[in-house]
Amino acid sequence: MDSELDHELVAAAREVIRARYKPDWHTVGCAIRTRSGRIHRGVHLECYVGRVTVCAEAIAIGRAVTEGDGEEIETIVAVRQSSSNDAEPCVVAPCGMCREMISDYAPRARVIMPVPEGMSAKSVSELLPDRYTRS
Amino acid sequence: MDSELDHELVAAAREVIRARYKPDWHTVGCAIRTRSGRIHRGVHLECYVGRVTVCAEAIAIGRAVTEGDGEEIETIVAVRQSSSNDAEPCVVAPCGMCREMISDYAPRARVIMPVPEGMSAKSVSELLPDRYTRS
Amino acid sequence: MDSELDHELVAAAREVIRARYKPDWHTVGCAIRTRSGRIHRGVHLECYVGRVTVCAEAIAIGRAVTEGDGEEIETIVAVRQSSSNDAEPCVVAPCGMCREMISDYAPRARVIMPVPEGMSAKSVSELLPDRYTRS
Amino acid sequence: MDSELDHELVAAAREVIRARYKPDWHTVGCAIRTRSGRIHRGVHLECYVGRVTVCAEAIAIGRAVTEGDGEEIETIVAVRQSSSNDAEPCVVAPCGMCREMISDYAPRARVIMPVPEGMSAKSVSELLPDRYTRS
Repeated sequence: MDSELDHELVAAAREVIRARYKPDWHTVGCAIRTRSGRIHRGVHLECYVGRVTVCAEAIAIGRAVTEGDGEEIETIVAVRQSSSNDAEPCVVAPCGMCREMISDYAPRARVIMPVPEGMSAKSVSELLPDRYTRS
Repeated sequence: MDSELDHELVAAAREVIRARYKPDWHTVGCAIRTRSGRIHRGVHLECYVGRVTVCAEAIAIGRAVTEGDGEEIETIVAVRQSSSNDAEPCVVAPCGMCREMISDYAPRARVIMPVPEGMSAKSVSELLPDRYTRS
Repeated sequence: MDSELDHELVAAAREVIRARYKPDWHTVGCAIRTRSGRIHRGVHLECYVGRVTVCAEAIAIGRAVTEGDGEEIETIVAVRQSSSNDAEPCVVAPCGMCREMISDYAPRARVIMPVPEGMSAKSVSELLPDRYTRS
Repeated sequence: MDSELDHELVAAAREVIRARYKPDWHTVGCAIRTRSGRIHRGVHLECYVGRVTVCAEAIAIGRAVTEGDGEEIETIVAVRQSSSNDAEPCVVAPCGMCREMISDYAPRARVIMPVPEGMSAKSVSELLPDRYTRS
Protein backbone atom coordinates (compact mmCIF):
# COMPACT_ATOMS: atom_id res chain seq x y z
CA MET A 1 0.00 0.00 0.00
CA ASP A 2 1.90 2.98 -1.16
CA SER A 3 -0.55 5.12 -3.04
CA GLU A 4 -0.21 8.80 -2.43
CA LEU A 5 -3.99 9.08 -2.09
CA ASP A 6 -3.98 6.57 0.74
CA HIS A 7 -1.26 8.41 2.60
CA GLU A 8 -3.19 11.63 2.15
CA LEU A 9 -6.27 9.95 3.65
CA VAL A 10 -4.30 8.69 6.67
CA ALA A 11 -2.95 12.22 7.13
CA ALA A 12 -6.51 13.62 7.07
CA ALA A 13 -7.62 11.17 9.76
CA ARG A 14 -4.58 12.04 11.89
CA GLU A 15 -5.19 15.74 11.48
CA VAL A 16 -8.80 15.60 12.66
CA ILE A 17 -8.10 13.56 15.78
CA ARG A 18 -5.09 15.68 16.70
CA ALA A 19 -7.34 18.73 16.44
CA ARG A 20 -10.23 17.26 18.44
CA TYR A 21 -8.39 14.92 20.81
CA LYS A 22 -9.93 14.89 24.28
CA PRO A 23 -8.90 12.06 26.60
CA ASP A 24 -11.73 9.61 27.31
CA TRP A 25 -14.05 11.39 24.86
CA HIS A 26 -12.39 11.69 21.43
CA THR A 27 -9.41 9.47 20.69
CA VAL A 28 -10.22 8.01 17.26
CA GLY A 29 -10.52 9.87 13.97
CA CYS A 30 -11.64 8.59 10.60
CA ALA A 31 -11.32 9.79 7.02
CA ILE A 32 -13.12 8.38 4.01
CA ARG A 33 -12.64 9.13 0.36
CA THR A 34 -15.48 8.92 -2.11
CA ARG A 35 -15.40 8.39 -5.85
CA SER A 36 -15.96 12.13 -6.22
CA GLY A 37 -12.54 12.69 -4.67
CA ARG A 38 -13.94 14.37 -1.58
CA ILE A 39 -12.68 13.44 1.88
CA HIS A 40 -15.14 13.24 4.81
CA ARG A 41 -13.85 13.17 8.36
CA GLY A 42 -15.29 12.15 11.71
CA VAL A 43 -14.23 11.67 15.31
CA HIS A 44 -15.73 9.15 17.67
CA LEU A 45 -18.10 10.20 20.41
CA GLU A 46 -17.45 8.35 23.64
CA CYS A 47 -20.34 8.45 26.08
CA TYR A 48 -20.68 8.12 29.84
CA VAL A 49 -22.70 4.96 29.20
CA GLY A 50 -20.29 3.07 26.97
CA ARG A 51 -23.00 1.32 24.95
CA VAL A 52 -24.13 4.69 23.61
CA THR A 53 -20.73 5.53 22.09
CA VAL A 54 -20.56 6.02 18.31
CA CYS A 55 -17.41 5.24 16.34
CA ALA A 56 -15.55 7.68 14.12
CA GLU A 57 -16.29 5.57 11.04
CA ALA A 58 -20.05 6.00 11.57
CA ILE A 59 -19.70 9.76 11.97
CA ALA A 60 -17.63 10.05 8.78
CA ILE A 61 -20.06 7.86 6.81
CA GLY A 62 -22.97 9.83 8.25
CA ARG A 63 -21.41 13.08 7.11
CA ALA A 64 -20.90 11.76 3.59
CA VAL A 65 -24.49 10.50 3.42
CA THR A 66 -25.88 13.74 4.86
CA GLU A 67 -24.05 15.70 2.21
CA GLY A 68 -25.34 13.46 -0.57
CA ASP A 69 -21.92 11.95 -1.22
CA GLY A 70 -22.36 8.55 0.41
CA GLU A 71 -23.07 6.39 -2.61
CA GLU A 72 -19.54 5.55 -3.60
CA ILE A 73 -17.20 5.34 -0.66
CA GLU A 74 -13.88 4.18 -1.97
CA THR A 75 -11.43 4.06 0.94
CA ILE A 76 -11.75 4.20 4.73
CA VAL A 77 -9.16 4.62 7.45
CA ALA A 78 -9.33 5.17 11.21
CA VAL A 79 -6.50 6.22 13.50
CA ARG A 80 -6.21 6.36 17.27
CA GLN A 81 -4.35 8.89 19.34
CA SER A 82 -3.31 7.50 22.70
CA SER A 83 -2.01 10.57 24.48
CA SER A 84 -1.99 14.30 24.05
CA ASN A 85 1.57 14.37 22.77
CA ASP A 86 1.10 11.49 20.40
CA ALA A 87 2.71 12.85 17.28
CA GLU A 88 1.51 10.11 14.98
CA PRO A 89 -1.86 8.51 15.75
CA CYS A 90 -1.82 4.82 14.77
CA VAL A 91 -3.98 3.20 12.13
CA VAL A 92 -6.55 0.91 13.79
CA ALA A 93 -8.87 -1.80 12.50
CA PRO A 94 -12.63 -1.15 12.49
CA CYS A 95 -14.61 -2.92 15.23
CA GLY A 96 -17.23 -5.54 14.42
CA MET A 97 -20.05 -2.98 14.49
CA CYS A 98 -18.25 -0.75 12.01
CA ARG A 99 -17.60 -3.74 9.77
CA GLU A 100 -21.37 -4.30 9.66
CA MET A 101 -22.00 -0.66 8.79
CA ILE A 102 -19.23 -0.60 6.19
CA SER A 103 -20.76 -3.74 4.62
CA ASP A 104 -24.01 -1.81 4.22
CA TYR A 105 -22.72 1.61 3.21
CA ALA A 106 -19.42 0.89 1.53
CA PRO A 107 -19.45 -2.74 0.41
CA ARG A 108 -16.76 -2.23 -2.21
CA ALA A 109 -14.53 0.05 -0.14
CA ARG A 110 -10.90 -0.62 0.65
CA VAL A 111 -10.27 -0.49 4.41
CA ILE A 112 -6.75 0.57 5.35
CA MET A 113 -5.58 -1.76 8.12
CA PRO A 114 -2.55 -1.87 10.39
CA VAL A 115 -0.13 -4.68 9.60
CA PRO A 116 3.26 -5.42 11.18
CA GLU A 117 5.06 -3.76 8.28
CA GLY A 118 2.84 -0.66 8.27
CA MET A 119 -0.50 -0.54 6.45
CA SER A 120 -2.42 -2.66 4.04
CA ALA A 121 -5.80 -2.34 2.30
CA LYS A 122 -8.44 -5.03 2.78
CA SER A 123 -11.98 -5.52 1.54
CA VAL A 124 -14.85 -5.55 4.01
CA SER A 125 -15.70 -9.10 2.96
CA GLU A 126 -12.26 -10.12 4.20
CA LEU A 127 -12.93 -8.31 7.50
CA LEU A 128 -16.45 -9.69 8.02
CA PRO A 129 -16.48 -13.02 6.17
CA ASP A 130 -19.71 -15.01 5.94
CA ARG A 131 -21.75 -12.10 7.16
CA TYR A 132 -25.06 -12.58 8.99
CA THR A 133 -28.00 -12.74 6.59
CA ARG A 134 -31.65 -13.49 7.19
CA SER A 135 -32.55 -15.09 3.88
CA MET B 1 -42.52 27.67 21.27
CA ASP B 2 -42.69 30.24 18.56
CA SER B 3 -39.18 31.53 18.09
CA GLU B 4 -38.21 32.13 14.52
CA LEU B 5 -34.86 30.44 15.18
CA ASP B 6 -36.62 27.26 16.26
CA HIS B 7 -38.78 27.20 13.18
CA GLU B 8 -35.71 27.72 11.05
CA LEU B 9 -34.06 24.75 12.77
CA VAL B 10 -37.08 22.52 12.15
CA ALA B 11 -37.03 23.60 8.51
CA ALA B 12 -33.34 22.65 8.26
CA ALA B 13 -34.04 19.18 9.66
CA ARG B 14 -36.94 18.73 7.24
CA GLU B 15 -34.85 19.87 4.33
CA VAL B 16 -32.05 17.39 4.94
CA ILE B 17 -34.30 14.35 5.32
CA ARG B 18 -36.37 15.31 2.29
CA ALA B 19 -33.14 15.50 0.30
CA ARG B 20 -31.71 12.20 1.60
CA TYR B 21 -34.88 10.19 2.22
CA LYS B 22 -34.48 6.53 1.31
CA PRO B 23 -37.11 4.13 2.62
CA ASP B 24 -35.74 1.71 5.26
CA TRP B 25 -32.35 3.47 5.26
CA HIS B 26 -32.78 7.21 5.89
CA THR B 27 -36.06 8.42 7.34
CA VAL B 28 -34.98 10.71 10.18
CA GLY B 29 -33.12 14.00 9.93
CA CYS B 30 -31.72 16.18 12.69
CA ALA B 31 -30.57 19.78 12.94
CA ILE B 32 -28.73 21.32 15.86
CA ARG B 33 -27.88 24.94 16.50
CA THR B 34 -24.79 25.93 18.42
CA ARG B 35 -24.06 29.12 20.34
CA SER B 36 -22.01 30.25 17.34
CA GLY B 37 -25.24 30.36 15.32
CA ARG B 38 -24.17 27.56 13.01
CA ILE B 39 -26.57 24.76 12.13
CA HIS B 40 -25.30 21.17 11.81
CA ARG B 41 -27.41 18.53 10.13
CA GLY B 42 -27.43 14.74 10.10
CA VAL B 43 -29.50 11.86 8.82
CA HIS B 44 -29.81 8.51 10.52
CA LEU B 45 -28.05 5.46 9.14
CA GLU B 46 -30.22 2.38 9.33
CA CYS B 47 -28.28 -0.87 9.05
CA TYR B 48 -29.13 -4.39 7.95
CA VAL B 49 -28.41 -5.47 11.52
CA GLY B 50 -30.67 -3.10 13.41
CA ARG B 51 -28.43 -2.86 16.48
CA VAL B 52 -25.75 -1.20 14.35
CA THR B 53 -28.02 1.69 13.29
CA VAL B 54 -26.94 5.21 14.30
CA CYS B 55 -29.50 7.96 14.92
CA ALA B 56 -29.59 11.31 13.14
CA GLU B 57 -28.93 13.15 16.41
CA ALA B 58 -25.61 11.33 16.83
CA ILE B 59 -24.54 12.14 13.27
CA ALA B 60 -25.40 15.83 13.72
CA ILE B 61 -23.58 16.01 17.07
CA GLY B 62 -20.64 14.17 15.51
CA ARG B 63 -20.45 16.72 12.71
CA ALA B 64 -20.45 19.62 15.17
CA VAL B 65 -17.73 18.00 17.29
CA THR B 66 -15.64 17.07 14.25
CA GLU B 67 -15.76 20.67 13.06
CA GLY B 68 -14.76 21.99 16.49
CA ASP B 69 -18.19 23.48 17.15
CA GLY B 70 -19.56 20.94 19.60
CA GLU B 71 -18.96 22.71 22.89
CA GLU B 72 -22.13 24.75 23.06
CA ILE B 73 -25.06 23.01 21.46
CA GLU B 74 -28.10 25.14 22.11
CA THR B 75 -31.08 23.51 20.41
CA ILE B 76 -31.76 20.09 18.86
CA VAL B 77 -34.62 18.82 16.74
CA ALA B 78 -35.25 15.60 14.82
CA VAL B 79 -37.95 14.98 12.24
CA ARG B 80 -39.18 11.83 10.56
CA GLN B 81 -40.38 11.42 7.01
CA SER B 82 -42.76 8.51 6.64
CA SER B 83 -43.18 8.28 2.89
CA SER B 84 -41.61 9.67 -0.23
CA ASN B 85 -44.37 12.21 -0.78
CA ASP B 86 -44.43 13.33 2.85
CA ALA B 87 -44.47 17.08 2.45
CA GLU B 88 -43.92 17.88 6.09
CA PRO B 89 -41.78 15.43 8.09
CA CYS B 90 -42.97 15.30 11.72
CA VAL B 91 -40.98 16.33 14.76
CA VAL B 92 -40.06 13.25 16.81
CA ALA B 93 -38.73 12.75 20.32
CA PRO B 94 -35.16 11.46 20.75
CA CYS B 95 -34.84 7.80 21.77
CA GLY B 96 -33.35 6.77 25.10
CA MET B 97 -29.89 6.31 23.58
CA CYS B 98 -29.94 9.80 22.10
CA ARG B 99 -31.08 11.21 25.44
CA GLU B 100 -27.94 9.69 26.99
CA MET B 101 -25.72 11.19 24.29
CA ILE B 102 -27.43 14.58 24.52
CA SER B 103 -26.90 14.49 28.31
CA ASP B 104 -23.17 14.11 27.65
CA TYR B 105 -22.71 16.43 24.70
CA ALA B 106 -25.43 19.02 25.09
CA PRO B 107 -26.53 18.99 28.74
CA ARG B 108 -27.99 22.49 28.60
CA ALA B 109 -29.61 22.16 25.18
CA ARG B 110 -33.30 22.68 24.49
CA VAL B 111 -34.81 19.68 22.72
CA ILE B 112 -37.75 20.49 20.47
CA MET B 113 -40.43 17.90 21.12
CA PRO B 114 -43.75 17.05 19.50
CA VAL B 115 -46.77 17.91 21.63
CA PRO B 116 -50.46 17.66 20.74
CA GLU B 117 -50.62 21.35 19.94
CA GLY B 118 -47.45 21.34 17.80
CA MET B 119 -43.99 21.68 19.31
CA SER B 120 -42.47 22.45 22.66
CA ALA B 121 -38.91 22.76 23.98
CA LYS B 122 -37.75 20.59 26.87
CA SER B 123 -34.50 20.16 28.72
CA VAL B 124 -32.64 16.86 28.55
CA SER B 125 -33.00 16.46 32.31
CA GLU B 126 -36.76 16.45 31.78
CA LEU B 127 -36.34 13.79 29.09
CA LEU B 128 -33.92 11.58 31.05
CA PRO B 129 -34.69 12.28 34.71
CA ASP B 130 -32.57 10.66 37.42
CA ARG B 131 -29.97 9.61 34.93
CA TYR B 132 -27.74 6.57 35.53
CA THR B 133 -24.57 7.48 37.40
CA ARG B 134 -21.80 5.33 38.80
CA SER B 135 -20.92 7.41 41.83
CA MET C 1 -40.66 1.88 49.49
CA ASP C 2 -40.56 -0.63 52.28
CA SER C 3 -42.11 -3.78 50.92
CA GLU C 4 -40.39 -6.95 51.97
CA LEU C 5 -40.60 -8.22 48.40
CA ASP C 6 -38.67 -5.22 47.15
CA HIS C 7 -35.94 -5.69 49.72
CA GLU C 8 -35.73 -9.34 48.77
CA LEU C 9 -35.30 -8.32 45.12
CA VAL C 10 -32.52 -5.87 45.96
CA ALA C 11 -30.82 -8.62 47.97
CA ALA C 12 -31.04 -10.98 44.97
CA ALA C 13 -29.40 -8.39 42.70
CA ARG C 14 -26.65 -7.81 45.27
CA GLU C 15 -26.05 -11.49 45.68
CA VAL C 16 -25.55 -12.16 41.98
CA ILE C 17 -23.10 -9.32 41.41
CA ARG C 18 -21.13 -10.17 44.54
CA ALA C 19 -20.84 -13.72 43.23
CA ARG C 20 -19.84 -12.72 39.67
CA TYR C 21 -18.01 -9.45 40.29
CA LYS C 22 -15.00 -9.04 38.03
CA PRO C 23 -13.48 -5.57 37.78
CA ASP C 24 -13.99 -3.97 34.33
CA TRP C 25 -16.15 -6.90 33.17
CA HIS C 26 -19.00 -7.50 35.61
CA THR C 27 -19.89 -4.75 38.06
CA VAL C 28 -23.68 -4.46 37.74
CA GLY C 29 -26.29 -7.04 38.69
CA CYS C 30 -30.02 -7.00 38.10
CA ALA C 31 -32.98 -8.87 39.54
CA ILE C 32 -36.53 -8.81 38.19
CA ARG C 33 -39.66 -10.24 39.70
CA THR C 34 -42.51 -11.47 37.53
CA ARG C 35 -46.19 -11.84 38.38
CA SER C 36 -45.52 -15.56 38.81
CA GLY C 37 -43.34 -14.70 41.80
CA ARG C 38 -40.15 -15.94 40.18
CA ILE C 39 -36.97 -13.87 40.33
CA HIS C 40 -34.66 -13.69 37.28
CA ARG C 41 -31.13 -12.41 37.64
CA GLY C 42 -28.50 -11.10 35.26
CA VAL C 43 -25.09 -9.49 35.29
CA HIS C 44 -23.85 -7.04 32.72
CA LEU C 45 -21.33 -8.05 30.10
CA GLU C 46 -18.73 -5.37 29.51
CA CYS C 47 -16.88 -5.73 26.23
CA TYR C 48 -13.47 -4.64 24.95
CA VAL C 49 -15.33 -2.47 22.45
CA GLY C 50 -17.60 -0.53 24.79
CA ARG C 51 -20.46 -0.18 22.29
CA VAL C 52 -20.91 -3.96 22.35
CA THR C 53 -21.54 -4.10 26.12
CA VAL C 54 -24.93 -5.42 27.27
CA CYS C 55 -26.51 -4.24 30.52
CA ALA C 56 -27.59 -6.47 33.39
CA GLU C 57 -31.24 -5.49 32.91
CA ALA C 58 -31.21 -6.86 29.34
CA ILE C 59 -29.66 -10.14 30.47
CA ALA C 60 -32.26 -10.55 33.23
CA ILE C 61 -35.14 -9.72 30.89
CA GLY C 62 -33.66 -12.08 28.31
CA ARG C 63 -33.59 -14.90 30.85
CA ALA C 64 -37.20 -14.34 31.79
CA VAL C 65 -38.28 -14.26 28.14
CA THR C 66 -36.21 -17.33 27.26
CA GLU C 67 -37.83 -19.26 30.08
CA GLY C 68 -41.32 -18.21 28.99
CA ASP C 69 -41.82 -15.97 32.00
CA GLY C 70 -41.34 -12.56 30.39
CA GLU C 71 -44.95 -11.49 29.91
CA GLU C 72 -45.56 -9.92 33.28
CA ILE C 73 -42.47 -8.33 34.72
CA GLU C 74 -43.52 -6.57 37.89
CA THR C 75 -40.42 -5.05 39.49
CA ILE C 76 -36.84 -4.38 38.32
CA VAL C 77 -33.75 -3.33 40.22
CA ALA C 78 -30.08 -3.01 39.32
CA VAL C 79 -27.16 -2.60 41.70
CA ARG C 80 -23.52 -1.73 41.14
CA GLN C 81 -20.52 -3.04 43.00
CA SER C 82 -17.61 -0.63 42.86
CA SER C 83 -14.81 -2.67 44.41
CA SER C 84 -14.11 -6.23 45.39
CA ASN C 85 -14.73 -5.59 49.07
CA ASP C 86 -17.90 -3.60 48.49
CA ALA C 87 -20.20 -5.10 51.09
CA GLU C 88 -23.35 -3.45 49.85
CA PRO C 89 -23.62 -2.78 46.10
CA CYS C 90 -25.63 0.39 45.47
CA VAL C 91 -28.93 0.62 43.67
CA VAL C 92 -28.46 2.38 40.31
CA ALA C 93 -30.84 3.88 37.79
CA PRO C 94 -31.26 2.18 34.41
CA CYS C 95 -29.53 3.88 31.46
CA GLY C 96 -31.47 5.34 28.55
CA MET C 97 -31.10 2.16 26.50
CA CYS C 98 -32.50 0.04 29.32
CA ARG C 99 -35.39 2.47 29.73
CA GLU C 100 -36.26 1.83 26.08
CA MET C 101 -36.10 -1.93 26.55
CA ILE C 102 -38.10 -1.79 29.79
CA SER C 103 -40.74 0.30 27.96
CA ASP C 104 -41.07 -2.54 25.46
CA TYR C 105 -40.81 -5.57 27.74
CA ALA C 106 -42.09 -4.34 31.07
CA PRO C 107 -44.22 -1.24 30.43
CA ARG C 108 -46.10 -1.57 33.71
CA ALA C 109 -43.12 -2.53 35.87
CA ARG C 110 -41.99 -0.63 38.93
CA VAL C 111 -38.31 0.32 38.67
CA ILE C 112 -36.54 0.61 42.02
CA MET C 113 -34.43 3.77 41.91
CA PRO C 114 -31.84 5.30 44.22
CA VAL C 115 -33.03 8.43 46.02
CA PRO C 116 -31.23 10.48 48.67
CA GLU C 117 -33.19 8.79 51.44
CA GLY C 118 -32.62 5.26 50.09
CA MET C 119 -34.84 3.73 47.41
CA SER C 120 -38.05 4.57 45.64
CA ALA C 121 -40.13 2.86 42.95
CA LYS C 122 -40.90 4.67 39.69
CA SER C 123 -42.76 3.79 36.55
CA VAL C 124 -40.91 3.57 33.25
CA SER C 125 -43.06 6.35 31.83
CA GLU C 126 -41.65 8.60 34.55
CA LEU C 127 -38.13 7.52 33.57
CA LEU C 128 -38.60 7.89 29.80
CA PRO C 129 -41.33 10.51 29.41
CA ASP C 130 -42.64 11.35 25.93
CA ARG C 131 -40.98 8.33 24.43
CA TYR C 132 -39.91 8.25 20.77
CA THR C 133 -42.68 6.94 18.53
CA ARG C 134 -42.94 6.70 14.77
CA SER C 135 -46.65 7.27 14.42
CA MET D 1 -19.31 -31.23 11.07
CA ASP D 2 -21.11 -34.30 12.20
CA SER D 3 -20.60 -34.56 15.90
CA GLU D 4 -23.62 -35.68 17.82
CA LEU D 5 -22.98 -32.97 20.39
CA ASP D 6 -23.16 -30.29 17.72
CA HIS D 7 -26.44 -31.60 16.38
CA GLU D 8 -27.80 -31.71 19.91
CA LEU D 9 -26.80 -28.05 20.34
CA VAL D 10 -28.53 -27.02 17.11
CA ALA D 11 -31.63 -28.88 18.27
CA ALA D 12 -31.56 -26.98 21.58
CA ALA D 13 -31.37 -23.63 19.76
CA ARG D 14 -34.25 -24.65 17.48
CA GLU D 15 -36.33 -25.79 20.40
CA VAL D 16 -36.04 -22.52 22.30
CA ILE D 17 -36.93 -20.29 19.37
CA ARG D 18 -39.83 -22.50 18.36
CA ALA D 19 -41.13 -22.20 21.91
CA ARG D 20 -40.65 -18.42 22.17
CA TYR D 21 -41.17 -17.34 18.56
CA LYS D 22 -43.05 -14.07 18.29
CA PRO D 23 -42.96 -12.30 14.91
CA ASP D 24 -40.95 -9.04 15.00
CA TRP D 25 -39.88 -9.66 18.62
CA HIS D 26 -38.25 -13.08 18.95
CA THR D 27 -37.06 -14.82 15.81
CA VAL D 28 -33.53 -15.97 16.71
CA GLY D 29 -32.50 -18.51 19.32
CA CYS D 30 -29.04 -19.45 20.50
CA ALA D 31 -27.55 -22.37 22.39
CA ILE D 32 -24.05 -22.56 23.82
CA ARG D 33 -22.26 -25.51 25.34
CA THR D 34 -19.65 -25.06 28.04
CA ARG D 35 -16.79 -27.33 29.02
CA SER D 36 -18.96 -28.50 31.93
CA GLY D 37 -21.33 -30.04 29.40
CA ARG D 38 -24.17 -27.69 30.27
CA ILE D 39 -26.21 -26.00 27.55
CA HIS D 40 -27.36 -22.37 27.98
CA ARG D 41 -30.06 -20.96 25.76
CA GLY D 42 -31.21 -17.48 24.83
CA VAL D 43 -33.59 -15.74 22.47
CA HIS D 44 -33.04 -12.33 20.98
CA LEU D 45 -34.95 -9.31 22.24
CA GLU D 46 -36.03 -7.05 19.42
CA CYS D 47 -36.92 -3.53 20.52
CA TYR D 48 -39.15 -0.77 19.13
CA VAL D 49 -35.97 1.30 18.73
CA GLY D 50 -33.86 -1.12 16.71
CA ARG D 51 -30.53 0.05 18.17
CA VAL D 52 -31.63 -1.21 21.58
CA THR D 53 -32.14 -4.80 20.40
CA VAL D 54 -29.98 -7.50 22.00
CA CYS D 55 -28.99 -10.65 20.11
CA ALA D 56 -29.70 -14.21 21.24
CA GLU D 57 -25.98 -14.93 21.54
CA ALA D 58 -25.58 -12.16 24.14
CA ILE D 59 -28.52 -13.45 26.17
CA ALA D 60 -27.15 -17.00 26.14
CA ILE D 61 -23.65 -15.84 27.11
CA GLY D 62 -25.16 -13.62 29.80
CA ARG D 63 -27.04 -16.53 31.26
CA ALA D 64 -23.92 -18.70 31.37
CA VAL D 65 -21.93 -15.90 33.04
CA THR D 66 -24.73 -15.15 35.51
CA GLU D 67 -24.80 -18.80 36.53
CA GLY D 68 -21.04 -18.91 36.98
CA ASP D 69 -20.52 -21.14 33.96
CA GLY D 70 -19.17 -18.60 31.48
CA GLU D 71 -15.46 -19.31 31.70
CA GLU D 72 -15.22 -22.07 29.17
CA ILE D 73 -17.69 -21.70 26.37
CA GLU D 74 -16.94 -24.42 23.87
CA THR D 75 -19.49 -24.20 21.08
CA ILE D 76 -22.06 -21.60 19.96
CA VAL D 77 -24.90 -21.78 17.47
CA ALA D 78 -27.76 -19.45 16.55
CA VAL D 79 -30.81 -20.29 14.45
CA ARG D 80 -33.51 -18.13 12.93
CA GLN D 81 -37.18 -18.96 12.54
CA SER D 82 -38.75 -17.04 9.70
CA SER D 83 -42.43 -17.85 10.12
CA SER D 84 -44.70 -19.43 12.67
CA ASN D 85 -44.89 -22.73 10.80
CA ASP D 86 -41.18 -22.92 10.15
CA ALA D 87 -40.45 -26.50 11.09
CA GLU D 88 -36.69 -26.19 10.99
CA PRO D 89 -35.19 -22.82 11.94
CA CYS D 90 -32.00 -22.18 9.92
CA VAL D 91 -28.51 -21.82 11.34
CA VAL D 92 -27.35 -18.21 10.98
CA ALA D 93 -23.98 -16.52 11.29
CA PRO D 94 -23.38 -14.16 14.24
CA CYS D 95 -23.44 -10.44 13.42
CA GLY D 96 -20.37 -8.24 13.82
CA MET D 97 -21.39 -7.16 17.32
CA CYS D 98 -21.74 -10.77 18.46
CA ARG D 99 -18.37 -11.59 16.93
CA GLU D 100 -16.86 -8.89 19.16
CA MET D 101 -18.59 -10.27 22.24
CA ILE D 102 -17.65 -13.86 21.38
CA SER D 103 -14.02 -12.72 20.97
CA ASP D 104 -14.17 -11.42 24.55
CA TYR D 105 -16.19 -14.15 26.25
CA ALA D 106 -15.49 -17.24 24.19
CA PRO D 107 -12.24 -16.66 22.30
CA ARG D 108 -11.59 -20.37 21.80
CA ALA D 109 -15.16 -21.37 21.00
CA ARG D 110 -16.25 -23.11 17.82
CA VAL D 111 -19.04 -21.19 16.10
CA ILE D 112 -21.38 -23.36 14.05
CA MET D 113 -21.98 -21.59 10.74
CA PRO D 114 -24.27 -22.17 7.79
CA VAL D 115 -22.50 -23.36 4.66
CA PRO D 116 -23.97 -24.42 1.32
CA GLU D 117 -23.67 -28.07 2.25
CA GLY D 118 -25.18 -27.64 5.73
CA MET D 119 -23.12 -26.56 8.73
CA SER D 120 -19.49 -26.03 9.55
CA ALA D 121 -17.60 -24.95 12.68
CA LYS D 122 -15.34 -21.90 12.56
CA SER D 123 -13.19 -20.10 15.07
CA VAL D 124 -14.02 -16.55 16.07
CA SER D 125 -10.65 -15.39 14.76
CA GLU D 126 -11.76 -16.60 11.34
CA LEU D 127 -15.02 -14.65 11.73
CA LEU D 128 -13.43 -11.44 13.01
CA PRO D 129 -9.92 -11.43 11.60
CA ASP D 130 -7.48 -8.67 12.56
CA ARG D 131 -9.72 -7.51 15.36
CA TYR D 132 -9.70 -3.90 16.59
CA THR D 133 -7.17 -3.37 19.37
CA ARG D 134 -6.04 -0.22 21.12
CA SER D 135 -2.47 -1.14 21.93
